[in-house]
Amino acid sequence: MWVSLFLGAFSILIAQSSLSARDQPNFVLIFCDDLGYGDLGSYGHPSIRTPNLDKMAADGMRLTDFYSAASVCTPSRAALLTGRYPVRSGMCSDRRRVLFPDSLGGLPESEWTIAEALKSEGYATAAVGKWHLGHRHQYLPTEHGFDSYYGIPYSNDMDRVSNAPRGAAKSLEPHINWWNVPLLRNQKVVEQPVDQTTITRRYTRQATKFIESNRENPFFLYLAHSMPHVPLFRSKQFKGHSLRGLYGDVIEEIDWSVGQILSALTENGLDKNTLVFFTSDNGPWLTQGPAGGTAGLLREGKGSTWEGGMREPAIAWWPGQIQPGSVSSELAATIDLFPTFLSLAGGNLLAGLEIDGHDMSPVLFEHSQSVRHHFAYYRGTQIFALRMGAFKAHFMTKSAYGRDPIETHDRPLIYNLQADPSERFDLGESRPELVAAFENLKVHYLNEVEVAPSRLESRMPKQ
Amino acid sequence: MWVSLFLGAFSILIAQSSLSARDQPNFVLIFCDDLGYGDLGSYGHPSIRTPNLDKMAADGMRLTDFYSAASVCTPSRAALLTGRYPVRSGMCSDRRRVLFPDSLGGLPESEWTIAEALKSEGYATAAVGKWHLGHRHQYLPTEHGFDSYYGIPYSNDMDRVSNAPRGAAKSLEPHINWWNVPLLRNQKVVEQPVDQTTITRRYTRQATKFIESNRENPFFLYLAHSMPHVPLFRSKQFKGHSLRGLYGDVIEEIDWSVGQILSALTENGLDKNTLVFFTSDNGPWLTQGPAGGTAGLLREGKGSTWEGGMREPAIAWWPGQIQPGSVSSELAATIDLFPTFLSLAGGNLLAGLEIDGHDMSPVLFEHSQSVRHHFAYYRGTQIFALRMGAFKAHFMTKSAYGRDPIETHDRPLIYNLQADPSERFDLGESRPELVAAFENLKVHYLNEVEVAPSRLESRMPKQ
Repeated sequence: MWVSLFLGAFSILIAQSSLSARDQPNFVLIFCDDLGYGDLGSYGHPSIRTPNLDKMAADGMRLTDFYSAASVCTPSRAALLTGRYPVRSGMCSDRRRVLFPDSLGGLPESEWTIAEALKSEGYATAAVGKWHLGHRHQYLPTEHGFDSYYGIPYSNDMDRVSNAPRGAAKSLEPHINWWNVPLLRNQKVVEQPVDQTTITRRYTRQATKFIESNRENPFFLYLAHSMPHVPLFRSKQFKGHSLRGLYGDVIEEIDWSVGQILSALTENGLDKNTLVFFTSDNGPWLTQGPAGGTAGLLREGKGSTWEGGMREPAIAWWPGQIQPGSVSSELAATIDLFPTFLSLAGGNLLAGLEIDGHDMSPVLFEHSQSVRHHFAYYRGTQIFALRMGAFKAHFMTKSAYGRDPIETHDRPLIYNLQADPSERFDLGESRPELVAAFENLKVHYLNEVEVAPSRLESRMPKQ
Repeated sequence: MWVSLFLGAFSILIAQSSLSARDQPNFVLIFCDDLGYGDLGSYGHPSIRTPNLDKMAADGMRLTDFYSAASVCTPSRAALLTGRYPVRSGMCSDRRRVLFPDSLGGLPESEWTIAEALKSEGYATAAVGKWHLGHRHQYLPTEHGFDSYYGIPYSNDMDRVSNAPRGAAKSLEPHINWWNVPLLRNQKVVEQPVDQTTITRRYTRQATKFIESNRENPFFLYLAHSMPHVPLFRSKQFKGHSLRGLYGDVIEEIDWSVGQILSALTENGLDKNTLVFFTSDNGPWLTQGPAGGTAGLLREGKGSTWEGGMREPAIAWWPGQIQPGSVSSELAATIDLFPTFLSLAGGNLLAGLEIDGHDMSPVLFEHSQSVRHHFAYYRGTQIFALRMGAFKAHFMTKSAYGRDPIETHDRPLIYNLQADPSERFDLGESRPELVAAFENLKVHYLNEVEVAPSRLESRMPKQ
């Protein structure tokens, strides 16, 4: 990609003049799949135990108002890696909300990813886990700035075999051969179907090996767990581990994995020089019965622009830099991680790049106010809701996965999310000035954020 | 009360032979009013900050499956202080669920309270805060084993003046003179209407003074906050303190109070010899709009036998005795505190006393299994639900405060509360052996737990 190479070179010059390699912190981004706001011990779950994540929070910062930039997988991941609302890259659609095995599209070459940006600052980069931004070779992680890749190219419930039973994905005793999902190393399929029972352990091993082998140079590790997306699998070590049953076993294995990562950093003397950030792509998949998670006190779940669909557990850890045990309710989102990481690496954003993220360093390191004052909740290509400070306006609503139509509100529903996190008490009637401010903000978004043609709709012809 | 005096003397003999006064730990029981399962930071609330309670949990134990023995105030408190289901004392009713200012009844003289039991073991005893077990003089705390009392005799929304506005109790700007609630010192009214804005501070000051003046002898302090029951009041120091608004301000002032209590213990060198237990009487009053709390992921709230009505935040603290940062999902309840405290004080239960509580020391001090294997959810005098291990059976259900009738289930609804804390997935159809076990357990309760005539129904004749 010519533009990024050119500007990458420019960025290297900046980096060399501003930060030496040994001052550049490492970044570990741990990203779950369908983890609900209420699914961790430190976020109030009564029967799931997450001692490693709770300790990570006690030694770092727990964020209460952190958002993914979409309520489903593909657009959320596109936003995370580009720092841009997914409408800009075309990685969303009002018809096919994510990529499927028959999809032809993927994250465009023209997009600049966190990995590309950090690579141009001299970072070693690795992607481990689920990708879901295009599985044709030109869209794979190694084409988007990652030196290496090990993981599955799309969701673990796709490529279901024809003789799998009904309701296979939500089964509490799923079989790995009910799906035909491939495991890739770089661009090559190395196992199909992947043995999902050991996948969290193998991702973890890949991650710790990468940490060990890069202790002398700055690195960026993107560890995107396939779990707890259904079908749920865990290793034999975690079978029956949790009071919560299979779903809890899976979360507790992810928690174990977090412990392994933090230990690897500490044992390699990297803990004082590494920012670890833990979050998820969207809310819990509530239609999956006991195989789905919980959004706790938040309304609705995955697929919805109610809070449960897009507000995520988020824990930041960097001993010596982040105040231990701090809790922040400042507004921040996955799209903020790109500019934050790049700024800490001593790099600069590309001139002319339309980026939606803000450097969230003041929140993380000064426990101060966010630079972000508003946030858009897109469903597909449409702005369903906006947040501004403590308030949220819903212009359109729809339950997550139901067949009920989209409801358009002539006068938006307004909630104070701090006073009313469960979105129970509409204030629109009594706060016309907020309605007006949100209408203006919507116009601002419609003018400023360009909607590119969708890349999720083209598919292979049916055979 | 002759029986308790006689057996009290007997208990003192036991105490003298088993534990010297300096080995007897102190007990501080902090009891809130209508606090929801999801209302503390450590139980997942995003915008209420409870650093003192979170620290108390980090230094002690957080319990996830701890119950009040009723979903409304009066029976819950009767159970707490007697260790018995409230049907035994007649402190419940299917018609008038709590005591009101025109009520004539109260906790019978024949009941043996924690305060009486500990007093007979040589403890100094004090009740500070809300009582709600009878406001005629023979029912007041000083008649039930407390050396002193300072607080309000019933709920802070009772005794409303005739010209108070509609919806006064749920107002977010209530005036203290909309109610005529008295403040008592021992048996004497010292202020009416009580200035509720300073009530949490004044209770706290009474509590810390009691701690200071009893540092040389064992004591039992029962601190029953009037808050966060509506109407909500907080001192000027906490006005606008919380992102959550008035309700959050009130919780954050209670959190401050907890910090004051723990500091007073530490400053007086009593922290290593005091068990502090924090919980509440019942779940959040969901019909109070923004003035009510949240049960987090639990279903329903105050007044209901769904989990949100009776499962409570519960934190136990005793440095050196309770493992710091421990979390227990063992089944336990307010009725267990009486036998636990008494056993730690070196005392014995009265011979022949029908008590429903179990000593929960193994849970608290060995982080081990509970002696409690089952628990009954009464609504008024009827068993609506039972819990056995992880499972719960609903024989009858009714929404908390609605006008809908009681629904009787021919085949009980069965939930696995550990796998399904939100009570979404009824297992009754597929688990007939559980249905049978619960039917047997219900018969056991009906046979073993005698229902005394209600003491909540007699009232003053209308003038």
